[in-house]
Amino acid sequence: MGDAKGISKEKGEGKKGGQGGGKTALKIPKGTRDWFGPEALLRDKIFSTLGDIFSRHGAVPLDTPVFELKDILSGKYGEDSKLIYDLADQGGEICALRYDLTVPFARWLAMNSVQQVKRYHIAKVYRRDQPAIARGRMREFYQCDFDIAGEYDPMIPDAEILRIIVEAFTALGLREEVTIKINHRKILDGLFTVAGVPDDKIRTISSAVDKLDKSPWEEVKKEMLEKGLTEEIADQIGKFTKHNGSLEKIIDILRNDEKALKNDKVKQGLDDMEKLVAYTQEFGISDKISFDLALARGLDYYTGVIYEVVIELPSEKSGDTRIGSIAAGGRYDNLVGMYGKKQIPCVGISFGVDRIFTILQKKHEAEKLKPRGADVFIMAFGGKNGLLLPRMAIARTLWDGGVRAEFLAKAKPKLPQQFKAAEDKNIPVAVILGEDELAAGKVRIKILGLPDGHPDKDGRLVERDNLVEEVKKTLTELPTQSTVVVNQ
Amino acid sequence: MGDAKGISKEKGEGKKGGQGGGKTALKIPKGTRDWFGPEALLRDKIFSTLGDIFSRHGAVPLDTPVFELKDILSGKYGEDSKLIYDLADQGGEICALRYDLTVPFARWLAMNSVQQVKRYHIAKVYRRDQPAIARGRMREFYQCDFDIAGEYDPMIPDAEILRIIVEAFTALGLREEVTIKINHRKILDGLFTVAGVPDDKIRTISSAVDKLDKSPWEEVKKEMLEKGLTEEIADQIGKFTKHNGSLEKIIDILRNDEKALKNDKVKQGLDDMEKLVAYTQEFGISDKISFDLALARGLDYYTGVIYEVVIELPSEKSGDTRIGSIAAGGRYDNLVGMYGKKQIPCVGISFGVDRIFTILQKKHEAEKLKPRGADVFIMAFGGKNGLLLPRMAIARTLWDGGVRAEFLAKAKPKLPQQFKAAEDKNIPVAVILGEDELAAGKVRIKILGLPDGHPDKDGRLVERDNLVEEVKKTLTELPTQSTVVVNQ
Repeated sequence: MGDAKGISKEKGEGKKGGQGGGKTALKIPKGTRDWFGPEALLRDKIFSTLGDIFSRHGAVPLDTPVFELKDILSGKYGEDSKLIYDLADQGGEICALRYDLTVPFARWLAMNSVQQVKRYHIAKVYRRDQPAIARGRMREFYQCDFDIAGEYDPMIPDAEILRIIVEAFTALGLREEVTIKINHRKILDGLFTVAGVPDDKIRTISSAVDKLDKSPWEEVKKEMLEKGLTEEIADQIGKFTKHNGSLEKIIDILRNDEKALKNDKVKQGLDDMEKLVAYTQEFGISDKISFDLALARGLDYYTGVIYEVVIELPSEKSGDTRIGSIAAGGRYDNLVGMYGKKQIPCVGISFGVDRIFTILQKKHEAEKLKPRGADVFIMAFGGKNGLLLPRMAIARTLWDGGVRAEFLAKAKPKLPQQFKAAEDKNIPVAVILGEDELAAGKVRIKILGLPDGHPDKDGRLVERDNLVEEVKKTLTELPTQSTVVVNQ
Repeated sequence: MGDAKGISKEKGEGKKGGQGGGKTALKIPKGTRDWFGPEALLRDKIFSTLGDIFSRHGAVPLDTPVFELKDILSGKYGEDSKLIYDLADQGGEICALRYDLTVPFARWLAMNSVQQVKRYHIAKVYRRDQPAIARGRMREFYQCDFDIAGEYDPMIPDAEILRIIVEAFTALGLREEVTIKINHRKILDGLFTVAGVPDDKIRTISSAVDKLDKSPWEEVKKEMLEKGLTEEIADQIGKFTKHNGSLEKIIDILRNDEKALKNDKVKQGLDDMEKLVAYTQEFGISDKISFDLALARGLDYYTGVIYEVVIELPSEKSGDTRIGSIAAGGRYDNLVGMYGKKQIPCVGISFGVDRIFTILQKKHEAEKLKPRGADVFIMAFGGKNGLLLPRMAIARTLWDGGVRAEFLAKAKPKLPQQFKAAEDKNIPVAVILGEDELAAGKVRIKILGLPDGHPDKDGRLVERDNLVEEVKKTLTELPTQSTVVVNQ
């Protein structure tokens, strides 16, 4: 996400747990969270939505270790490197938690000399940033990355990534709300040069420009002056970074800027962006794209197009809206080569799942998801010793038949207690055992939660020997509960 | 898995990367690995097999942060605590990577005052142990945990855990090969007391006994003497730890040992184990259980039954078999209370997925899984400009229709190159575009890999407007390829 600014050190941090009395402080690390219940279901729904789209484009999954050798991560993240979590030196290799999924992907490509691949990776990454939990900014958070590696013709994979972004937000129900801001590192760097920025200051000035989405121009300008630019050069930058609009509009502005056009990088970037005009039209996504010359992206490794997906969010405090970034990426053609192997051009996108989660949660999507325990609850109605062994035998039969089944782990449970347990777990069907019925080789199947007077309210007696098929039949006949999600 | 012995410090470790020339050493941290291709598919198959079984028993998923406050982990793992990975102190809280999934679960229960839950958790854990990759022992490895928390009647949840173990290995095709070794901490501790071990030495002597599956008796005895036992007491321990067999057999031996029966803990443990006789019979799993008085388990937190699933594996060197542990767990009634909250009794099982993976891989299960890219490859047969824009338009149509589709990201690809790309990605169907056919509103659908002379070998022309439904129809009519797994 690249928007991490400043290291966190707060009051109370750094103390070594212990609230007296020898008891352990009952907390989780700052900026981390547990996932359970409806929230875990909503998160998993986001994962499966994105995973399905990645798979629709032919991608295969890759999983890498949560930590890498520190050297692998060094020199890849610019000013944000200070946010990397280091492992303690306990007498072995020097390691650090991954900061994103892109660098591990590049390391994997280089290590295995992979020439071409479409891979996706859904996993946690780590940034020692100041958490802003209401906005979904955490220290441990999920990213969903899709990347295309390999030598292809210009801008075709890049356009496919843009298409995937639109497909993803369409599937998540956010197509209308999002905009893809796009820029090109070569155009940006060329324009910096044209404005008079010396080569060795381009990356650090780019970092300053990257803050324009959050800070006013005056503040960014101040940072540029502190970084050694003259006022005149800074103002030149201020002029061109104001432009944004459709691909055609910005291409037109640049094509008419003679001074800019003399710069080779600007020209190369423009050639790329012109190809995008046709490709995004064929893919039906040009309405979602805004060419924004102020978009810089903080990371060092981008070499071509860069993009950021923004969404208008209501601000908690003022009631107006603020713009948040919920996915970002770009082309990075030199990263794999940094590991001393053959260069492999890459382009990709990283979805900030925790932020998407926070937005969908505010739209009450989580409330619609209700975790369900098993499908069947086995109950005893009276009977000797609470019919514990028969309940176990019935459970075995159902499990063997692949039916999701539970029973109350008590020797002599009362009937209301069993109904309550089934209700608490949102279980739709009961199998009820009675001593006489068992003796006759029968058990009762009952759909739970039917209204009084419903013809099936009392359930039906079935042969114990046919239990599995009878239960499966009942499960297909349930009244629809569109909001219930089974946990699997 | 609790079998971690000794910290690793080897030659070459501790050097700070860098092989000269400023290039980054291209390695991953020792004891870690990437997952990709058929191996990732086999691993995911293990995950889904286990996840389905957990869900069949009504469990819901929980996900916790990969690191915890160091204090949360302290004092839970006995001698193995030295294997915990610490995060560097970078000026915030003191944290460490999780060592297992049990302690985070207990922390979550305590923090949220959860009284009852069946939860499962499939995630990576971290141990700074000496890796043995051929045996599947890694520093970063997956565990799949299922636990039942809550006040229930004795041994009912414990028996369900044993049932889940058997269901899991049945589903993984390993039922015949595995045995569940079981013991009871109360019986073991009681027998230590009866043998004359002082109370303050019970845990450390238990740790020594835990090594009996890997070390000869003489070595374990030597460790006990070093830990301060007399030869006589050690020999007493040697006598009872020899017993193993069916639940009934060992219960019988203990019931006839007057000296042992005078110990309250032994009696309580025996009452528990007697209940298991009936419960495991109802669950149809008693043939897989071996009561083994030498089973001790290294971890501090167990309070009741403990178990370990062992499998006979052919040894790489000698050709004979060795016993490996592939799942383990037990009852831990006091762990949640260690966080200063109400006690919540728990029992659970942890599957060592990486070891199970290694065993299944040796059975060539991975070879049967072949990753597939998309379902459809869009190709151009001649045509102006390689029909790039029409290929993009067709891709858009297919993606919009939910069809998994790819095309070669080249402006003017040769036909053989496109066929090869489809073959490399194991894609079963081609949609082939020709200029004249496109002009007539038609495209060709062709099943790839059909033998010469097959009536459908040349495919069929369809209306472009009906493409999505025609492609979907073709996909349902494919010759079965039982070994191909789609990546989703």
